[in-house]
Amino acid sequence: MKEYHIGIDVGGTSVKLGIVDRDCRILCRRSYGTPKGMDGSQAVDLIVSGIQSVLHACGLTSDGIASVGVGVPGTVRYGYGIVDSSPNFPKWHRFDIRRELSERLSVPVVVDNDAKMAAAGEKFAGAAVPYDNFVLVTIGTGIGGAVYANGLPVRGRDGTAGEIGHIVVEPEGMECGCGSNGCVEMYASAGAIVRYYRARSHDRSRAVTAEDVYRRAIMREPPAMYAFRQMGMYLGIALTDVVNLLNPEALIFTGKVSRAIRLFLPSVKAVVNRRAFRLPSRGIVYRKGTLGDDAAIIGAVCRARP
Amino acid sequence: MKEYHIGIDVGGTSVKLGIVDRDCRILCRRSYGTPKGMDGSQAVDLIVSGIQSVLHACGLTSDGIASVGVGVPGTVRYGYGIVDSSPNFPKWHRFDIRRELSERLSVPVVVDNDAKMAAAGEKFAGAAVPYDNFVLVTIGTGIGGAVYANGLPVRGRDGTAGEIGHIVVEPEGMECGCGSNGCVEMYASAGAIVRYYRARSHDRSRAVTAEDVYRRAIMREPPAMYAFRQMGMYLGIALTDVVNLLNPEALIFTGKVSRAIRLFLPSVKAVVNRRAFRLPSRGIVYRKGTLGDDAAIIGAVCRARP
Repeated sequence: MKEYHIGIDVGGTSVKLGIVDRDCRILCRRSYGTPKGMDGSQAVDLIVSGIQSVLHACGLTSDGIASVGVGVPGTVRYGYGIVDSSPNFPKWHRFDIRRELSERLSVPVVVDNDAKMAAAGEKFAGAAVPYDNFVLVTIGTGIGGAVYANGLPVRGRDGTAGEIGHIVVEPEGMECGCGSNGCVEMYASAGAIVRYYRARSHDRSRAVTAEDVYRRAIMREPPAMYAFRQMGMYLGIALTDVVNLLNPEALIFTGKVSRAIRLFLPSVKAVVNRRAFRLPSRGIVYRKGTLGDDAAIIGAVCRARP
Repeated sequence: MKEYHIGIDVGGTSVKLGIVDRDCRILCRRSYGTPKGMDGSQAVDLIVSGIQSVLHACGLTSDGIASVGVGVPGTVRYGYGIVDSSPNFPKWHRFDIRRELSERLSVPVVVDNDAKMAAAGEKFAGAAVPYDNFVLVTIGTGIGGAVYANGLPVRGRDGTAGEIGHIVVEPEGMECGCGSNGCVEMYASAGAIVRYYRARSHDRSRAVTAEDVYRRAIMREPPAMYAFRQMGMYLGIALTDVVNLLNPEALIFTGKVSRAIRLFLPSVKAVVNRRAFRLPSRGIVYRKGTLGDDAAIIGAVCRARP
C-alpha cells in the first residue's frame, strides 16, 4: 500500500529530503550539499539517489511512495512543473523537472517554487493555519514569498506570484540579479546585512557572514544591531506596499534570516505603522514560521498528496 | 415588482447616480456637484434626494427599487458598510453610511470603496470579463485600485486591499495625504502631471490642469509629452511591484487620467518590461476600462443585487 510521501526542498546550498506520512509527520530526513551550478540532469540524479538513500536508511522500499513534491528556487510554470528560470541554477532554463522525475520514479510528481511550498506547509501545519489572508516572506540569500487570499494561494497567470523580493525600494538603487535595480532583495537579505555591518563597523574582512553579524547583534554590538535595523527598515518599505495592496491578517517570516526576527521586526513594524494605512496596518500578526527548515518539505508533500 | 437597482458613485467632485435594470443596463442617470467638505448627513441627504429626482425623471417610483449600491472614496470595512476614513471627506470618520441609507430608503444597501465597485463593474460587464487574475488601477486626483485573484476580489482582512496608490516609489519622496511619503499617488496622479509640466515648461500659471497638459501633449508639445512619460515611469515602478507580486493576466486602467493611456502606457510598459520578471511581464494585457465613468455605478449594482 502507498503510505508515504517524499518532500524535497532544492536549495542553493543544500537539497533536503524527507519521508512524510499521511499525517504530515516527517519520519526520516536527509540533506545533501548542492553542487555549484548543477544542471538539470545532475539535479534529477541527486534527487533520485537521495530518495533511494533516505528510503534505505528508514528501512522502506520505493513501492510505498504515493507521491513526490519538489520545491525549487526560481519561477515555475504552475500546472506544468517546468522551471522557467532560476537565479541559483542558471542552466535550468525551461527545465521540465517534473517530467524527468516522474519518468525516473514512476509516481506523481508536483513541482513549485520553494516559497510557495513553504507557504503551503505553514498553512497546512504551521503558523499560517488560522489565516485565510496571509503573506509568507522567506529571507535568506534572497527574498521570496507567497500570497494567500480568500483561503487560496494566489498564483497569478503563470504561477509566479509572490515575488516580494523584487519590490522596488530604491528606484535608482543597486543592480539586482533579476535585471532590475533597487529590489528589496538587495537591501534586506543576508548579503545586505553583512554589507551594512561592514560599512558601519569598518570591518572589511571577507569572512564575516550574516550569521556572525547575528551573533554580534545578540551581544549588542552597535554596528551589528544597526545592520538589522537598516535591513528591517527596507523590508518595512516593501511590506508597506504588501499591506496596502493585500490587507493581510498575518505576515509569516521563514528562511535562515527569520531566526533574527526579534532584531529586525521592531524596525519593520515602525515603518509599516508609519507608512501603511491605519486600518490594514493595525493588528497585523507578525510571526516566525513554526516549521523551520521543514516548511517546504511538508508543503511539497501537502501539495503532492493525491 | 422590484425590477431595478440604484448605483451610486460618490466622488470628490461629483455624485453620480444611475438606475440600472436587471441586465446591468443604465436606464437613466444624474450627476450632482459634491459640496466641499460635506459631512455624513449631507451626503445621505444628497443621495436620498438624488434618488427621488432620478426616479421622477425616469417616470419610476421608489417601490420598484430592489437594492442600492454605493461606491465611496476611502477605506470601507467590508461587510459592515462603514467608511473608516476618506481623504476626500475628512468628516466621514467611521461613518456608518450603510445603516443611515438603508434606514432612509428601506431597501438593502451595499457600500464599498469606489475602485472596488469599478472593478466589479469591469469584471461583470467591461474590460475585465475574460480575466480571473487582474488588477484595476484608477487614476485621477488620486490613485486607487482593486485586485482579483482566482476569480474573486481580494479584500484582505478588513476589505481595504488594493491601495495601489500608496506603493512607495521614492522612499525619501514627497509627503502624501495618507501620512507616508513617496507614494506613487504623489508621482503619477493628475497633480503630478501638472507638476512635471510646470517644471519642464517653466509655465507657472496656477490655472493649468491635467486636462490642459493632456491637450498640449496631444498637440505634441514636448514639456507636456514629458509630463506623461515621467508619470508613466513612476506608475511603471509601482506596477512592477504589482506584476512581481501578483502575476496578473491584465492591468485595467480607469479614472479620468486613463483617457491619456496612449501617452503614458509606453513608459509604463518600458519600465515593467525592464524591471519585472520575464515570465509574469510577458504578455500582460494593458487595457483601458470599457465602462468609463459608469464602471462604479454598474459595479455597485452588480454587488448590491440580491
